[in-house]
Amino acid sequence: MQTIKVGLLGFGTVGAGVVKAFQNNGDLLARRLGGPVELVRIADLDIETKRPVEVSPQLLTTDAGAVLDDPQISIVIELIGGYEPARSFVLRAIANGKHVVTANKALLALHGEEIFQAAERAGVDVLFEASVGGGIPVISAIKENLGANRFQSAFGILNGTCNYILTRMTEEGADFATVLADAQAKGYAEADPTFDVEGIDTAHKLALLCSLCFGTRVDFKSIYTEGITRINALDIQFAREFGYKLKLLAIGKRDGDQIELRVHPTMLDLDHPLAKVDGAFNGVRLVGDFVGPVMFYGYGAGMEATASAVMGDVMALVRNLRSGAGVRTPALGCPQSAIERLTVKPMADLVSSYYLRVFVKDQPGVLAQIAGVLGRHRISIESMLQPHRHEADAVPIVMMTHEAVERDVRAALAEIDALDSVKGESLFIRIEEQAD
Amino acid sequence: MQTIKVGLLGFGTVGAGVVKAFQNNGDLLARRLGGPVELVRIADLDIETKRPVEVSPQLLTTDAGAVLDDPQISIVIELIGGYEPARSFVLRAIANGKHVVTANKALLALHGEEIFQAAERAGVDVLFEASVGGGIPVISAIKENLGANRFQSAFGILNGTCNYILTRMTEEGADFATVLADAQAKGYAEADPTFDVEGIDTAHKLALLCSLCFGTRVDFKSIYTEGITRINALDIQFAREFGYKLKLLAIGKRDGDQIELRVHPTMLDLDHPLAKVDGAFNGVRLVGDFVGPVMFYGYGAGMEATASAVMGDVMALVRNLRSGAGVRTPALGCPQSAIERLTVKPMADLVSSYYLRVFVKDQPGVLAQIAGVLGRHRISIESMLQPHRHEADAVPIVMMTHEAVERDVRAALAEIDALDSVKGESLFIRIEEQAD
Repeated sequence: MQTIKVGLLGFGTVGAGVVKAFQNNGDLLARRLGGPVELVRIADLDIETKRPVEVSPQLLTTDAGAVLDDPQISIVIELIGGYEPARSFVLRAIANGKHVVTANKALLALHGEEIFQAAERAGVDVLFEASVGGGIPVISAIKENLGANRFQSAFGILNGTCNYILTRMTEEGADFATVLADAQAKGYAEADPTFDVEGIDTAHKLALLCSLCFGTRVDFKSIYTEGITRINALDIQFAREFGYKLKLLAIGKRDGDQIELRVHPTMLDLDHPLAKVDGAFNGVRLVGDFVGPVMFYGYGAGMEATASAVMGDVMALVRNLRSGAGVRTPALGCPQSAIERLTVKPMADLVSSYYLRVFVKDQPGVLAQIAGVLGRHRISIESMLQPHRHEADAVPIVMMTHEAVERDVRAALAEIDALDSVKGESLFIRIEEQAD
Repeated sequence: MQTIKVGLLGFGTVGAGVVKAFQNNGDLLARRLGGPVELVRIADLDIETKRPVEVSPQLLTTDAGAVLDDPQISIVIELIGGYEPARSFVLRAIANGKHVVTANKALLALHGEEIFQAAERAGVDVLFEASVGGGIPVISAIKENLGANRFQSAFGILNGTCNYILTRMTEEGADFATVLADAQAKGYAEADPTFDVEGIDTAHKLALLCSLCFGTRVDFKSIYTEGITRINALDIQFAREFGYKLKLLAIGKRDGDQIELRVHPTMLDLDHPLAKVDGAFNGVRLVGDFVGPVMFYGYGAGMEATASAVMGDVMALVRNLRSGAGVRTPALGCPQSAIERLTVKPMADLVSSYYLRVFVKDQPGVLAQIAGVLGRHRISIESMLQPHRHEADAVPIVMMTHEAVERDVRAALAEIDALDSVKGESLFIRIEEQAD
């Protein structure tokens, strides 16, 4: 049986994991695939730095073209990350008739339409299981096994860095900045953590999840994205007192012809299945009309877990090549021509319950003032805490609201922030109750 | 594009779910598959009883041959259940060159080898995603996406009836018999619940999971199977006091060239991810060498969740047929010729920690006697409870052991049961600590 040849672009952490998988489990792959598959070329600008795996020097090249233009290679794995040169390389691989495996959510969230259309025209696959949820096989599940469902919602904890930071803030009562600095020192957060802590990475992944679940194009800019940098230890502690846990959640919901697409810190009922996804773990919960709720959980990042997903895609392509299937399943689970363009619901129209936190001067009548503003904006309070904190001249008031419209909440808080008795800016956090 | 035609054998609960999926989501299927797929024939001995879905009378037949021998039909869905005539029908469908989708774990656990070999010879697929974990796409995940992993373990809560009963016993402090009777009255348990409560259904599913994870044939008789009928509310209450939750667990572990295959009530650390899988839900947790731990969670049974899995398999076959792939992935994830036969570790060799419960006469010296017997069998106690129960002349002693060998535990308990001061038969329950 002919050996199927694979080339790798990008010899970073995940790239090294992929090399390790070929080395350690090549025999297993050959047995399961009924024939050999071989990594024949690795391109990276840096071929000098020592990696956690040993490779023969002949495999290494600084020239991406040695992978992209090699007629022997039928599968290209792109693990460079970022927009360019990844985009050009992927398009060139497609133009050369090669199937592509990528973990690059940023690239696909912004340039997916161009890439998937090019792939469809060229009759090649672009697989991206590793781009969402690391080793968790959620992309394939949506495209294949759960494909007979109309999805109502997709919720995810999709960024290990944020989840690690929030978990430690919850467990230790520590501040965001302190935990972030420690996470950076330990290598759990990037030197520039913006993409992670501002929710951008999570939004990239949500764009892909929702394209698949709802069969729609997602304009990345239409995703409401709010990170975790404004959260303080106090909010986490109050959340717990109200019976909630704070998570950075990716939320996609279908509501008729509209979809909600939002990434923000969310208070989850402690009994919510995603509330238990802690530390570096990722979790995805989908609700379909037939399957009902289904949840997936595992490592969302890391050299080996991500390599597992990449290798699963490689195996799928080898099986397609061996069986002569060509492109068996379109990139987004349905042909490009069948993809809809659903309207994104404006955030102002969102209906949710809310956690509100205001710092006020400790003087009589303040609470009545605030309650008055909320009432005039049709916001009713479900419960309230007014802890006594004598060490400061400002005391926090925290409230959980019944369901309200976000437009009203924002208007009420703007009015509240303008009160003389209020110090600094108020904060609101959306709440998700027990999952259906 | 040519319509792909599907026939259904068995118009019971899940069959009705499949019909409903074709009816409600036929447009979605056609869109995702790039062409129509049609259910053209339904065979069942009973075509008179009203179902929760309406079908045209021309679709119905009492003659399975009208499905099995119809040359138009390329996919046969078998939802009859049990061994015969399901086995003969599946073999006849295969012989007629039809692809098969089945939810029949009993059939595949006992006759899988015959069926999979026949399918491989005939060049057709036998897909069975719905046979394990209802709507949870775990079978495909193992065969496809996680296929590059060497699996170390597969743990599952795989029977909704048992999990429902144990959850209610835990929450209400009720007895097994009481909850079972109520579950039967509500339709959550069968009139004859033997397959469920004795762990047989769970063992069928474990056989399939472990065949896939470890690439081995599993002789169903080699699975140690113990049900939940001997558990009483007291054990569940004691488990909680020690920080554990009682679940019927399917356990497959690889240890070199041996595998552990066992189904039994298990005390799970409250922090174990499977401890939170309650009620009618199923959960599966796999550990692979690359992916690490990965968990799946969803409805393990029911008309619609199971239909979701059946329809996912139908979609996979339609994609294979449309792309000309033929059999793309072998039934067990590797060719029949590559399947190993690993040795099953004898239960006597098992190393585990244990919960022990003995009823004794409330008199001095009993505890010393019991501790003496355990010590002589190399079993050391980690913690003990001796609740005072004045209403009975026998009082329970419950102990958690450190790791011990099952042979020693059985020998010690046989000796303890023979003591004059001991009343009735002792009970032991294996413990799983926090997952790695």
